[in-house]
Amino acid sequence: MATYFSSNFTLGILGGGQLGKMLLYETRKFDIRTKVLDPSNEAPSRIACDEFQQGDLMDFDTVYHFGKDVDVLTFEIEGVNIEALEKLESEGKKVYPSSKTLRNIQDKGVQKKFYSEHKIPTSPFLVFEDKYKLNEAIVRKDLTFPFVWKSCTGGYDGKGVSVIRDAEAVIPLPEGACIAEKLIPFKNELAVIVARNPSGEVTTYPVVEMEFHPEANQVEYVLCPARIDENVAEKARAVTSKVSEAFQHVGLLAVELFQTEDDEILVNEVAPRPHNSGHYSIEASYTNQFEQHLRAILDLPLGKTDSKVGGIMVNLVGAEGHTGAVDYKNIEQILGMDGVTPHIYGKKQTRPFRKMGHVTIVNEDLSEARKIAEEVKKTIQVISK
Amino acid sequence: MATYFSSNFTLGILGGGQLGKMLLYETRKFDIRTKVLDPSNEAPSRIACDEFQQGDLMDFDTVYHFGKDVDVLTFEIEGVNIEALEKLESEGKKVYPSSKTLRNIQDKGVQKKFYSEHKIPTSPFLVFEDKYKLNEAIVRKDLTFPFVWKSCTGGYDGKGVSVIRDAEAVIPLPEGACIAEKLIPFKNELAVIVARNPSGEVTTYPVVEMEFHPEANQVEYVLCPARIDENVAEKARAVTSKVSEAFQHVGLLAVELFQTEDDEILVNEVAPRPHNSGHYSIEASYTNQFEQHLRAILDLPLGKTDSKVGGIMVNLVGAEGHTGAVDYKNIEQILGMDGVTPHIYGKKQTRPFRKMGHVTIVNEDLSEARKIAEEVKKTIQVISK
Repeated sequence: MATYFSSNFTLGILGGGQLGKMLLYETRKFDIRTKVLDPSNEAPSRIACDEFQQGDLMDFDTVYHFGKDVDVLTFEIEGVNIEALEKLESEGKKVYPSSKTLRNIQDKGVQKKFYSEHKIPTSPFLVFEDKYKLNEAIVRKDLTFPFVWKSCTGGYDGKGVSVIRDAEAVIPLPEGACIAEKLIPFKNELAVIVARNPSGEVTTYPVVEMEFHPEANQVEYVLCPARIDENVAEKARAVTSKVSEAFQHVGLLAVELFQTEDDEILVNEVAPRPHNSGHYSIEASYTNQFEQHLRAILDLPLGKTDSKVGGIMVNLVGAEGHTGAVDYKNIEQILGMDGVTPHIYGKKQTRPFRKMGHVTIVNEDLSEARKIAEEVKKTIQVISK
Repeated sequence: MATYFSSNFTLGILGGGQLGKMLLYETRKFDIRTKVLDPSNEAPSRIACDEFQQGDLMDFDTVYHFGKDVDVLTFEIEGVNIEALEKLESEGKKVYPSSKTLRNIQDKGVQKKFYSEHKIPTSPFLVFEDKYKLNEAIVRKDLTFPFVWKSCTGGYDGKGVSVIRDAEAVIPLPEGACIAEKLIPFKNELAVIVARNPSGEVTTYPVVEMEFHPEANQVEYVLCPARIDENVAEKARAVTSKVSEAFQHVGLLAVELFQTEDDEILVNEVAPRPHNSGHYSIEASYTNQFEQHLRAILDLPLGKTDSKVGGIMVNLVGAEGHTGAVDYKNIEQILGMDGVTPHIYGKKQTRPFRKMGHVTIVNEDLSEARKIAEEVKKTIQVISK
């Protein structure tokens, strides 16, 4: 087995955002050498890696040459040049998650078809190669209102997703390839993170429950464990296992699920990396998701996924009406609350709904944590100076 | 209140060893700008700070100019130029812990006298300005065997401490100032970490129990909570409060204690910084000691010091007979054990008894954690390649 610890072994990470930054806490803990590629010289990961390279993640040559120079290559964002990953793999480079996993995920149309082919429960959908075809389907009544429109590529943090209730709402949609999903009324949005290493070891985190901000379509609270019946949790874990088995991924796979009114579990979408729904694990779990991802991609034994205590995560997003140099108003007050840990991603500029950080609230009693989480939410504000 | 988060505020840290490295996880988490001074260009803290300066921590000019350039100055090692800190303070710079706290601690003779003056229970002692005076006291029978010899300055990790049982053992002792303490038979070595911020808020961590390696005189296991009666724990916390009150320190104070055969609590020594006996807190506590130190020196509200689960820390020290490029033998095996987290400090060279890292074992059941800790200890070896 390769010696990763305090050695010349180098892990390459495509993307230097907050997920990369939190992954670097773990590489530092294990003293694993890292090299990060990100387009921004102010990327949150810039200062805790061993080597930082500024460059375009979508550029073939940049990604290829970056990958040539490292021992294992991973990514913290799906928007990377997949052809470069394929070429690296064909030359024997270890790329985890693999280009194949990413191919099945990066395009939402492909992802949905993947679920159909693998008999994984997901909402009914149609794929359109452009807006012209979408309009055509509406005219022919192959597609009826309401439906959920999703851009096939580039969606992130609630961007690229809209609920379309009438013809008017179709007008501002972009031109590109998209999917239209049946709007399913659901009780809960759930998520399960599953880790898999190249040796085939698999571990699953507890089911978490996500509460969304009604306007921004961004996760507002993530609760672990989810406040659901054990049989629903069981079903969610079973579906997740099936998804994991189908993808044969290496590293984390975050599986977002709907619990329908009839307690059916449907897969919404997946992300092959540490995920916002797993941030609670830094404070609440025996092994946090970033350490688990690292263990998985390095083919180390996976850690215990149980929780030590109940955990709730609150996203810190930029307040509406504020753009400019960030100020975390009342952060001192929330630091005085029980079991509260803010994570500040290090973005110097705020703008409405930008993910600037998150706060974790841990408590033996989840309902107590929930109360504190609301206090946190009410107290802290991400504004401009 | 100053805005520390994602701002130009800069925390200066004297020393870039493993304690500094772990403190930097917290400054990264809060996105607080840091500048580190260390004599070694390969210091573990080098890469996760915003600015690194190579320089002598004992040199007045170096420390003074480094301090001028930061907003708050702290240290992760006691061996720093104290006159420079005094000058900085006289010019209005915030230095936490203060030079006064450090003055009372840096020299073990001064520290012991401080306890006497403040009626803090400690073992009987004599202070000698040099070895000549020590010999004189032995000749005059003012000092009788056995006793514990401690160098007044420069002691660290069991260096500068010897149990002296006869005249023969006196011969190899160094020439410098020293203290001789009465050898007290004790049941347990305990430690309590207490945090205090400039506003006077004080929090105390649970009592931990330290097990020492019989030869190297280094801590081998730290258990939290200590397996002691509640009334003894109560007494330990009361003594710690008295010590904290006497020092009026800002930041952490790690108080090492003896539990005598008669269940008396005596203060052994203190350290005004994050401490080896508090490493368990990263995985086991609601607020880890590094975050707490940061909260304290920045006058932020202090965090909850309770444990989520039982925690045991095993030091990873270089194996005897091994000097050279480090190899963490069987680290993969220990990663497969329940609730086990290795911390690798990033020192590239090992030598016998050098502190190279530590491993934390957490479990709801402390006795289960203790069993796993022994397995860890038996399995992993810090050797040279």
